[in-house]
This record gives sequence, structure tokens and C-alpha cells, in this order.
Amino acid sequence: MMNLPKEVTIWEVGPRDGLQNEPARLSTEQKIAWINSLTESGLTHIEVSSFVSPRWIPQLADAAEVFAGIQKKAGVVYSALVPNQQGLERALNVGVKAVAVFMSASETHNKKNINKTIDETFPVLRDVTRTAKMHQAFVRGYVSTVFGCPYEGEVSAEQVLRVALALLDDGVDEISLGDTIGVATPLQTERVLDRLLKEIPAERLALHMHNTRGTALANLLVGLTMGITKIDSALGGLGGCPYAPGASGNVATDDVLYMLQGSGIQTGIDEGKLLQSLELLQNSVGHALNSHASKVHLAQGGDHCVTM
Amino acid sequence: MMNLPKEVTIWEVGPRDGLQNEPARLSTEQKIAWINSLTESGLTHIEVSSFVSPRWIPQLADAAEVFAGIQKKAGVVYSALVPNQQGLERALNVGVKAVAVFMSASETHNKKNINKTIDETFPVLRDVTRTAKMHQAFVRGYVSTVFGCPYEGEVSAEQVLRVALALLDDGVDEISLGDTIGVATPLQTERVLDRLLKEIPAERLALHMHNTRGTALANLLVGLTMGITKIDSALGGLGGCPYAPGASGNVATDDVLYMLQGSGIQTGIDEGKLLQSLELLQNSVGHALNSHASKVHLAQGGDHCVTM
Repeated sequence: MMNLPKEVTIWEVGPRDGLQNEPARLSTEQKIAWINSLTESGLTHIEVSSFVSPRWIPQLADAAEVFAGIQKKAGVVYSALVPNQQGLERALNVGVKAVAVFMSASETHNKKNINKTIDETFPVLRDVTRTAKMHQAFVRGYVSTVFGCPYEGEVSAEQVLRVALALLDDGVDEISLGDTIGVATPLQTERVLDRLLKEIPAERLALHMHNTRGTALANLLVGLTMGITKIDSALGGLGGCPYAPGASGNVATDDVLYMLQGSGIQTGIDEGKLLQSLELLQNSVGHALNSHASKVHLAQGGDHCVTM
Repeated sequence: MMNLPKEVTIWEVGPRDGLQNEPARLSTEQKIAWINSLTESGLTHIEVSSFVSPRWIPQLADAAEVFAGIQKKAGVVYSALVPNQQGLERALNVGVKAVAVFMSASETHNKKNINKTIDETFPVLRDVTRTAKMHQAFVRGYVSTVFGCPYEGEVSAEQVLRVALALLDDGVDEISLGDTIGVATPLQTERVLDRLLKEIPAERLALHMHNTRGTALANLLVGLTMGITKIDSALGGLGGCPYAPGASGNVATDDVLYMLQGSGIQTGIDEGKLLQSLELLQNSVGHALNSHASKVHLAQGGDHCVTM
């Protein structure tokens, strides 16, 4: 039988990665209410916002206010994305204890996204990581375009490994492997993880899959059978893809939970409370969400869908 | 590494299972044009229509005309659903050489769907199968509610096995295992298949998964690693669920193809031609389809979806 882990940690990235790609603007109060409901559901890791320049991502300009306003439950990790020292300082000033730095595995995407080559990016993230560690903060490293780059196509596992190892050497605690454009397939997921796991312990790797081609859950299943126990997801599949109306972005927390629960894997999340949080989110964004679970549960009579 | 088959056969069920749940009514000419484009794409198995009573499924009342009108490529199997001897005779009269009978693994769903108990259903299907075999027709047996019944909940693998073995004993050539309400999870898929494969060779089993909870590709992946090489799917995820707007029904052929191709599995399908068929279908139904591939390929700029 499949060798699946007994427990999995879900890192809810919706308030950051979801909202930065969501056309609807939520008020600071709406964000705080939603994040509080996420805490209520039993999630242990929530990425609250991003301390990037408001000119860059205006949707998340209220990061400090949101962070100060949410109820912080003991034992729950509330993280924030930080692009540089300045962002880190703003985050530390409001008491953030877990930060995430980011770069791409592919040269062109990295250059277009943060205007530096990969080798120019390492020292910047190293400095941020060192300062964060001096303040006893946990540091995540997001590596984008691990399974494909919109400019370069497939990215070699060796290149992903090089970037991941450099970040870990520089003090990053854990690497989140991003399928940024949602192109990964199960065999590719296995191939990349197989290479990485030869040099990096599974507990230092998370999978951050987008469901653009519908393969995210299948890819996550492969990761689970290989010992990965950390999954990034966004409630309701929030965010989608700004250039393809209706296309899926982040894999949905509610869909991940359905698969994990049905496979006997513990997450600590209360499904009923997560669906309440989903309903709150859907009311705040004012349109239907992208997840399968949301369409089944929030559509009238969804549970009675029966066909031959 | 994962043990995946080198080749997989996709049985396109969109013209039957998709259209019977699709609100838009296609004209006979539109159906014929679409099915011809499916043939062009390289699909080797296409379920053309259903010879049930037109009062039951008015969308498919033109089964005979569609069957007579399509171009039939040598080596391609064009099948039709038949509920009873009368339907079988109508199908045989227009030259159908592959028919599909159907019943449910759960007592309540079978009773509600075909107004007979499971044990009352066997002799009816046995007679249809015998007559079909006398005419050298291939006979498929759809077994519904294999992974869950809307009235009874989970269905035991023993019960599924009992129904499948009875149909095979009565001369059915292959069993298609239906996740009718789209509730299966990977571990459950493994458990059910593990039981069935102890008594039934893999080449006599197909998986007919619905993607209602987003788990269909993950479940299919489990099947593939266990030796299943026959997959039912509907182009564009056609059909959906009539009671939950936006919810997914049949797993989409285009999404299945994406996963298979990316995993090095041959299907004989030309992706470019399948996407042309998808575009034709979307124009005929007049609304966006449910598959991930359709949203990526048919949305303007979908291929350029890039987020962190």
C-alpha cells in the first residue's frame, strides 16, 4: 500500500499569495476577520501579508495594520513575506516571528521578478536571513519556477538544488518549492523531489503547487509518498491567475484537506470551521471561489449532485 | 520510481455522459461535427450516445441519427449506452458494435436510477449482454457509486466486487468503475482496486472518475501505478453537475492527457487536434468549459499566467 505520512502541516498562504492576485480589494477589517477565522479552523501556519513596497502590491499595503489587528493564538505561526532588509524591519517592528524570502530557480523569471540575477540575489537574501535569525525569527525561502518557467520552460533539478542548497547554507530554515505557473506533472514532481531529497531532509522542504492544469493534488500525492509533510495552499484557491479568467492558481486548502482526510492523514484542521472561513471569504471577495470544495459546499444542493 | 504504464487508452464519454448533463442542447449536426473532430484527434474509443428512452434523456433522442451520421474511422470503437433489449436492438440496427450496460454498486442508487434491486438487474443485463455477444458486439459494464453513494455513503469493496464479478460472469467484457458523485480519495481508490485486482485482471477494469472534489487526477494516478490502463473522461469536463453550478463532473480528457503526457505515457492523441475539438465544443455549447486545460488554452493570454 502507499506509504503516506500520518500528519501533514498546511501553510495557509491565501491572505498573502491569494489576495495579491485577487481583483477584489478587502478592507483591513475584512482581512483581520478572515485571518481570525483561519486561526479558529485549527490551521497552525498562516501567511498573513507581505512587507513589500505598497507601490508594488497595493493590495497588501496594510500589512502592518493587519498583523497588529489579528488575534494571535499561541502555537500558531503567523508569517510575512519580506523582499529585503527594509521590509524585514517593518515586519519585525510589528512583532513578526516568521518571515519568508523569495527568489526564482530560473534566471529569466528571477530577473523579471526582482531585477537581479540569481547570484546577485543570494547576498541580499543572506543579509535578510542573518538579520531575521538575530531576532530569532523563523525563515522560509520560497523558490519559484521549480517545475517550469514561463520564459525558459522546464528548469533542471540540478538548478533547483543549487538554489535551495545556497539558501539553506545561508541560514534559511525551510524551502518551499513553487510550481509558480502550475505546470508540474506527477512524474516530474517525483524526479525533482528524488534529486533534492538526496541532499536535503524532507522536513526542510514544502510543496507550493498551483492547480493551473488540475494536477496539483496528484503532484502533492507524489510528494506525500516521498516523505514531504508540508503543503502550502490558499483557502478556496484564492487568487487564481490574473491573466486567465477562471483559471486556478494556488491549490485550494479545502481541496487539499479533503484529499488528506480521505487518506487518513491528520492536519489538526476542523473541516466545518474551515468551511465557515470559506464562506466568510467568499462573502468578502463577493464572487464564487475556485476550489472544488467551495463549489460543492457553497452551491445550493451541491451535495446532491448525482449522475450516472 | 513510480511504476507507470507506457500506454493508456482513453474512452471519451463526453458525447454521451457529458451531453446528458449539459444544459445547452446541441443539434444533431453539431454533435456529428464534434464527434468527427474527436476521431481526428486520435482518440480510439468514443461513446457516441445513449439508446435510452427519449423521454428519459431527451438530449440524446437523436442517437440513431448521430450514429449514422458520424465518420467511422477503422480501428476506432464507437460505443453506445443501452439500458435494455429494446435499446440494444435500436443500437444494433444502426450498426453499433460496442455497447455499454449499467447498474450501481449500491442498492438505493440502483433502485432510484433503474427502479430495480441489484439482484433484479442482473438478469436484464445478462440478456442484453447475451444478445449483444450473439451480434459480436463488445460489452462494457458501467458500475456506478463504486466509491460512494449519495444515499448510503461509502460502498464496501466486497459489494463492488460482487457486482463486477456477476457482470463479468454474465459475459461483460470490461467493467468501468464509476465514482459517480466524485468523492473518491487516493487511499480509498487504492483500497478498492487492491481488492478488485485480486480477482479481476487489470485489463478488464477501467476507471470512470468524476472531479467533483478535485481528486480525480490523483485517484487516476493511483490506478495507473496499480496497472489500470483504461480511463474514461469527457472533453472539457463536459457535463458538470446539474445541481451545483460550476462544480466539476467527469474528469476532463484534456486534463487527463496533460497529466499522462507529462508522465511519459502514450495515448495516441494529438494534443493540438484535441484542443481544436475543445474549441469546437466550447463554441457549440456556448459557454466556458470546466477543464483546467480549456481555461488555460482558450482564455486570452492563459499561457502567460505568472505569479510568485
